[in-house]
Amino acid sequence: MTQSKYDVLTIGNAIVDILSQAEDDFLIREGLVKGSMRLIDQDEAERLYDHMGPTQMISGGCAGNTAAGVASFGGRAAFIGKVADDEPGHFYRHDMQALDIAFPTENLTSGVSTGRSMILITPDTERTMNTFLGACLELTPDDIDPATVEGAAITYLEGYLWDPPKAKQAFVEASRIAHGAGRKVAITLSDSFCVDRFRGEFLDLMRTAKVDIVFANNHEILALYETSDFKSAVEALAQDVQLAAVTMGAEGSMVVAGANRVSVPAPPVDDIVDKTGAGDLFASGFLFGLARAASHADCAALGSIAAGEILQHIGARPQHSLKARAEQEGLHPRNGYCG
Amino acid sequence: MTQSKYDVLTIGNAIVDILSQAEDDFLIREGLVKGSMRLIDQDEAERLYDHMGPTQMISGGCAGNTAAGVASFGGRAAFIGKVADDEPGHFYRHDMQALDIAFPTENLTSGVSTGRSMILITPDTERTMNTFLGACLELTPDDIDPATVEGAAITYLEGYLWDPPKAKQAFVEASRIAHGAGRKVAITLSDSFCVDRFRGEFLDLMRTAKVDIVFANNHEILALYETSDFKSAVEALAQDVQLAAVTMGAEGSMVVAGANRVSVPAPPVDDIVDKTGAGDLFASGFLFGLARAASHADCAALGSIAAGEILQHIGARPQHSLKARAEQEGLHPRNGYCG
Repeated sequence: MTQSKYDVLTIGNAIVDILSQAEDDFLIREGLVKGSMRLIDQDEAERLYDHMGPTQMISGGCAGNTAAGVASFGGRAAFIGKVADDEPGHFYRHDMQALDIAFPTENLTSGVSTGRSMILITPDTERTMNTFLGACLELTPDDIDPATVEGAAITYLEGYLWDPPKAKQAFVEASRIAHGAGRKVAITLSDSFCVDRFRGEFLDLMRTAKVDIVFANNHEILALYETSDFKSAVEALAQDVQLAAVTMGAEGSMVVAGANRVSVPAPPVDDIVDKTGAGDLFASGFLFGLARAASHADCAALGSIAAGEILQHIGARPQHSLKARAEQEGLHPRNGYCG
Repeated sequence: MTQSKYDVLTIGNAIVDILSQAEDDFLIREGLVKGSMRLIDQDEAERLYDHMGPTQMISGGCAGNTAAGVASFGGRAAFIGKVADDEPGHFYRHDMQALDIAFPTENLTSGVSTGRSMILITPDTERTMNTFLGACLELTPDDIDPATVEGAAITYLEGYLWDPPKAKQAFVEASRIAHGAGRKVAITLSDSFCVDRFRGEFLDLMRTAKVDIVFANNHEILALYETSDFKSAVEALAQDVQLAAVTMGAEGSMVVAGANRVSVPAPPVDDIVDKTGAGDLFASGFLFGLARAASHADCAALGSIAAGEILQHIGARPQHSLKARAEQEGLHPRNGYCG
């Protein structure tokens, strides 16, 4: 195995976030399930936008957020995802390039617009996402640049990629190339509704070792194993995958590796403003640590640093250097796969 | 004088803000003067954007920010400014409509794009603005809807409107209509470079009573009277205009009305993040109070509440209800011109 060019490659839906604050009443009137992500078409996206309060536009998408986190830690990141040749697409690409994230995917020029997620932030800081996938639906195996996959210590894929049919094939192709180059493959289960949609396929990916590392929160692993018993879900997970990181909100996280369990508390976060991207940023810290051969406990602690930063402002991209925060805590890994 | 339909009408450049954090070194390399606003053309806007870090897009523009503040206080606001029929223009109009701000100006369809300001926020929280005026250059006297001006207790104009030549005529026309309907006219001096560009014209507007109320910070009134002596600048201001509100950053503000001086401290603000829009939001609170017949001291205190909110996050539009904050302080005016 040659030295890796990237710490982490993330592959996912390239989405511009349109964020707005909303009262609970608004979710009720619109029939939205708080904390969830639902897929909508362009007409519904336009209708909902007309009803939303003042907005901010910030690049988002789970895998994109995770790549931004890795870059903020000082890691070398790459991203594969599909945007259109339009204003939001240029905005998205600018933000990747500004972070020195390799982004080898070509723009879609079919006329379909860049994907966007209308995100409603309620006063309890929870986020409810309404996503129009747009150009993301056109991510295909042809977009999986083999050199980029082969060059990444870890390739990380979002469960939401299971929604666009051709992206699913791209996902499997990326896993094949990564494993062929002796690299690791990680997946996030994305959300519990996503798990409900693709439970069998996700379990199959794990059991056939197409993925080596699973990221999930407590709700998602309960959904995956259709149980209400957290402990038995963790045991099942330990059977199905080499390594898993399970987040539990304010209660911290648990790393599951065979018979080993490492629990890491979440440091208290003052002034939580917006939960958008907390899971994506946890994954960025964990993956960056893992690519640099940090201990599992340190990987989880790096994840908590990143999640803590993102909770304190609107939007799912870091506004402060995660490298500086990790150094402050004496946690910044200098060595590892990437030397 | 009939009862007013709007507390405040603001007229200004309709600008989408593209905000990014930047190190001091970046400003030095680019030869930018920290804290200032410079006008740039489309080529320079694109060149600078390519060099900026990850960005957020939020509606801005001084007068637009002030209208958003008035709306957040629960006031009835209107805005006149020119956007194009493009994605940033739709974004801008959406944000106005979402706040129930009347926005009678038609889109520009000539192909020139919506104005945008590339704003660099340095670690000291200062903002440096690089503005491409675009569609704003096409605001003309025809855009001054007489019914809207006649219906507003106060019409507020930004000094930056002096940059687009036709907007200057629109400004004078708005003042004429407002005074014809027995209303008040306010101006903000915008920034000290703007004062340098248009000193004679601003003094003429004041001395010929085309404006009744002036908003300025301490730097701007020193620039206006070309003096380094704050006290003598305040005396000159008192001679030239009926009412002025002078802000002095952390040192609070001073209301100048003939021989009267009211000094109002700025409440301490924890965790200043971004100074973009602080002056615009001060004006929103002051104008809202004035339109509702609050005392000058209360007007300035309302201004400080609004400025304090905006300092605590990125972007120049309020993220929390200013009405709720004013009520908390027992300062929300219930009555006034608008009954």
